Amino acid sequence: MFVYGKSYRTIWLDDDGVSVRVIDQTLLPHAFETRRLASVADVAEAITSMRVRGAPLLGAAAAYGYALAAERDPSDGNLLDAFATLAATRPTAVNLRWALARMDEKVRGSPHHERRAAAFAEAAAICDEDVSACERIGRNGVGLLRAKAKAKSAGRLNILTHCNAGWLACVDWGTALAPIYKAHDEGIALHVWVDETRPRNQGAALTAFELAAHGVPYTIITDNAGGHLMQGGQVDLCIVGSDRTAANGDVANKIGTYLKALAALDNAVPFYVALPSSTIDWTLARGVGAIPIEERSSREISHVTGRLESGGLATVAVAAVGSNLVNPAFDVTPAGYVTGLITERGIAGASREGLLALYPERGK
Amino acid sequence: MFVYGKSYRTIWLDDDGVSVRVIDQTLLPHAFETRRLASVADVAEAITSMRVRGAPLLGAAAAYGYALAAERDPSDGNLLDAFATLAATRPTAVNLRWALARMDEKVRGSPHHERRAAAFAEAAAICDEDVSACERIGRNGVGLLRAKAKAKSAGRLNILTHCNAGWLACVDWGTALAPIYKAHDEGIALHVWVDETRPRNQGAALTAFELAAHGVPYTIITDNAGGHLMQGGQVDLCIVGSDRTAANGDVANKIGTYLKALAALDNAVPFYVALPSSTIDWTLARGVGAIPIEERSSREISHVTGRLESGGLATVAVAAVGSNLVNPAFDVTPAGYVTGLITERGIAGASREGLLALYPERGK
Repeated sequence: MFVYGKSYRTIWLDDDGVSVRVIDQTLLPHAFETRRLASVADVAEAITSMRVRGAPLLGAAAAYGYALAAERDPSDGNLLDAFATLAATRPTAVNLRWALARMDEKVRGSPHHERRAAAFAEAAAICDEDVSACERIGRNGVGLLRAKAKAKSAGRLNILTHCNAGWLACVDWGTALAPIYKAHDEGIALHVWVDETRPRNQGAALTAFELAAHGVPYTIITDNAGGHLMQGGQVDLCIVGSDRTAANGDVANKIGTYLKALAALDNAVPFYVALPSSTIDWTLARGVGAIPIEERSSREISHVTGRLESGGLATVAVAAVGSNLVNPAFDVTPAGYVTGLITERGIAGASREGLLALYPERGK
Repeated sequence: MFVYGKSYRTIWLDDDGVSVRVIDQTLLPHAFETRRLASVADVAEAITSMRVRGAPLLGAAAAYGYALAAERDPSDGNLLDAFATLAATRPTAVNLRWALARMDEKVRGSPHHERRAAAFAEAAAICDEDVSACERIGRNGVGLLRAKAKAKSAGRLNILTHCNAGWLACVDWGTALAPIYKAHDEGIALHVWVDETRPRNQGAALTAFELAAHGVPYTIITDNAGGHLMQGGQVDLCIVGSDRTAANGDVANKIGTYLKALAALDNAVPFYVALPSSTIDWTLARGVGAIPIEERSSREISHVTGRLESGGLATVAVAAVGSNLVNPAFDVTPAGYVTGLITERGIAGASREGLLALYPERGK
């Protein structure tokens, strides 16, 4: 996508061929800076500190982390160490483990002298496939928006989204935002309600940044406001992303997603989840109570970083010193509350049957 | 209640007898300071800037604002001006208008030379009655907590609350927190999940401050987390306050309350609302779509004030300059999702019949 007129992906091989560059998402929306990652440790740090985040991008970053390990030392021991280090960074998004397993099979299945080249080729393939999957998610989802807009007697289409499932969460295009970009580009009049998404503010910091850059009308709201807007008929459709989807269609996504799904159900607002199939965990029969939920630092709640009037960044405490806090980072929305799963192969019912209809090879 | 070992109400007549003092709640939890209000304009400013907030306290503050007007000039013209100024400060909480109507009837119904004394006496009576009502809400609600705690096979009772409906929202005791204080004082083992309550953070700033001061175990969470905790069986009961309750039991309260009621329903968690009868708007047959919802400044979302490491307070922007934001401050939870209304007369079903059973004089 374009940032200040220049086309970007969220991760790319640097000119030296032995390091990668990413957009440092912890600095947005205040500054747009890229960062060089030259080792497994660099990539692991970028993931845990959320310089890169979003399920598909976590897969791509982990793949390049593995490739950087192969560049340094393609021995089994070093590659398995890299695998373990990267797999331990974040527990909820399954793409990370999916990408590592794919890298490991390809690279350790190659002769020693070909491992470096195989690793970079496979990481690049994972990135390209993600871009292609997201673009197809956009194409598969835009029809829903077109139909909804057509059915509306007056006014623009109002879509609510939570967290950031845009191109910054992927390699390009995005999942939840891909159909929105496609619809906007088609000339469909739409407007996006952007949940700010506490505690890390990905909605206000990243989704609003993306939408503004693309010229899509949006309004930032608190996470508390979506139910009220739905009750008042101000939301036509919800679309969110997913960090892991169980084989029955239960969806783990950023904490608070479940509350929006409940409000959508209560107000007969369709609730869609957009995801590439790399986000589906076929080994999990159900998600509720089964998908591991990352607990992150309570400092993410107690402290807020932003821009001072003077221009510099500062971090302020918004809770008293010594407060007790806990910070679960994801929740699981039961499949029964999900209208449909928008995937690169089409829109699936949020059920085992629905998913297998699109991915029959998984039913064997 | 006690703050640093000294007993406080949230509003009181100052020693000079012609001004009132309040706790400046915009400074909490970083500083505990009181502020002198000497005119209608002072009181109106304190209300709109939320130095004082919470439905019952808004009633008490408006009453004293009216009394300060009577002190200066007890003519009908001046009193009606004061009424209009104070009534316009905030639209959702009905206690404000209830208290003003009560003051006006009493004061303008008095001979001119008695108006000043009548006004201060009536404002003091409103405060004392609020303290008494909240204390009775505590007594009426503690039985629920006792029964829930008894029914629990193991572990402490986990209660979730949203925003601040503690003594800082009232003159003393609180509404939602009154039963919690009573239960804690009785020795019932309990723990409170405190929604931080964006955008103004009343949970993290005020409720956590109150609970910590009283020694009640609590944990601050994001507003997004409550559904996940309920789904995991970590919430036994929700109790919130109300800014206006319609005659059918629909409840307007801080934005986000509705989402928690939906999650409670989905997980069979009882959802109680605690309120003095001054919060009931008997003129409204229903609340959804009828109770006016205040829209506050978008700056409450885009900017956050907190304490710097160095000790001073600072305000930082957390959204990009020029972002679009809207900030509805309340939502309405339909009566059907409310398990019961804890009032000073007892626990009512959230319905017209339930309320009239406790307030039969309103059915005439």
